[in-house]
Amino acid sequence: MKIKLLRLGHRIHRDHRTTTHCALVARAFGSSEMYYCGNEDDSLQETIEKVNESWGGDFQITYLNSWKSFIKKCKKENHFVILCTMYGQNIPDMEDELRKTLQRQDIVVIIGSEKIPPELITLSDINIAISNQPHSEVAALAILLDRLFEGKQLEFKFTDPKINIIPQKKGKKSVYKL
Amino acid sequence: MKIKLLRLGHRIHRDHRTTTHCALVARAFGSSEMYYCGNEDDSLQETIEKVNESWGGDFQITYLNSWKSFIKKCKKENHFVILCTMYGQNIPDMEDELRKTLQRQDIVVIIGSEKIPPELITLSDINIAISNQPHSEVAALAILLDRLFEGKQLEFKFTDPKINIIPQKKGKKSVYKL
Repeated sequence: MKIKLLRLGHRIHRDHRTTTHCALVARAFGSSEMYYCGNEDDSLQETIEKVNESWGGDFQITYLNSWKSFIKKCKKENHFVILCTMYGQNIPDMEDELRKTLQRQDIVVIIGSEKIPPELITLSDINIAISNQPHSEVAALAILLDRLFEGKQLEFKFTDPKINIIPQKKGKKSVYKL
Repeated sequence: MKIKLLRLGHRIHRDHRTTTHCALVARAFGSSEMYYCGNEDDSLQETIEKVNESWGGDFQITYLNSWKSFIKKCKKENHFVILCTMYGQNIPDMEDELRKTLQRQDIVVIIGSEKIPPELITLSDINIAISNQPHSEVAALAILLDRLFEGKQLEFKFTDPKINIIPQKKGKKSVYKL
């Protein structure tokens, strides 16, 4: 089943790089698309389009006016909603259950930038902490996806890439398709 | 043994948030200190001092004029140097070996911001790819540390915290020590 990312509260200058990192991690680690709200930012879309063109796949980014209607729609469509928050239950205690859920339902993963709207804590199906220490939504997303896919996302192939890296002990090797 | 992070090429405005995320991930995921070069940025230090004060531990940040002398010193002191690069060998193939290394040697993990100096590819002991797709040094660091500590870093306790989170199914619960 699919994993969709919802990134909350994007601020165009302050969060441009971290939101880009969130989108790239989501793409590289097996999500199909990212939704975001806050400030609309066309350059996010442009960055991801360039990445898709060079590295393959068709990861999508969509701007939302309202996360609330999006979550309500997802719940109607039987998506399972995971809120990443340092106050939630710890990932090691929950990952088996989440992997089973992914076999039968699409999942929406919500990550914040600043404060999480309290309403989301009750609207989500589960609150997951990737450590109870402050760190980074980019890291939280990466760990959650790595645990959900049990590392297999590192072997996923993207359709129609122009660049392919050939892993090397030392040095760089890429194959370019013209 | 210890894990130290070296963050390359910090640019004060462009990278402030991502470098802060790198430092917070390093701290939350079991590294003892971060070194960085590029622009010196006192506010990084201030942020981490505030985090240590509230959340415990004594994670240290140090600015370096030259990564080259730092790496040479580390190598003289028998540190094992890991360079994170999407061109390297894949983490699933190397993590057992790296865990064994951590049992006998201190490790330096190097992450870039922009381009990695080619000299580092030969100076490092190993080049590790956390996926051969473009994504984020914050995510790469988190996954590497998660694999090195086999998730046990999520249970590490920090000394003398003022705030402790009590994980909840729904809602927020923290204990404050005055």
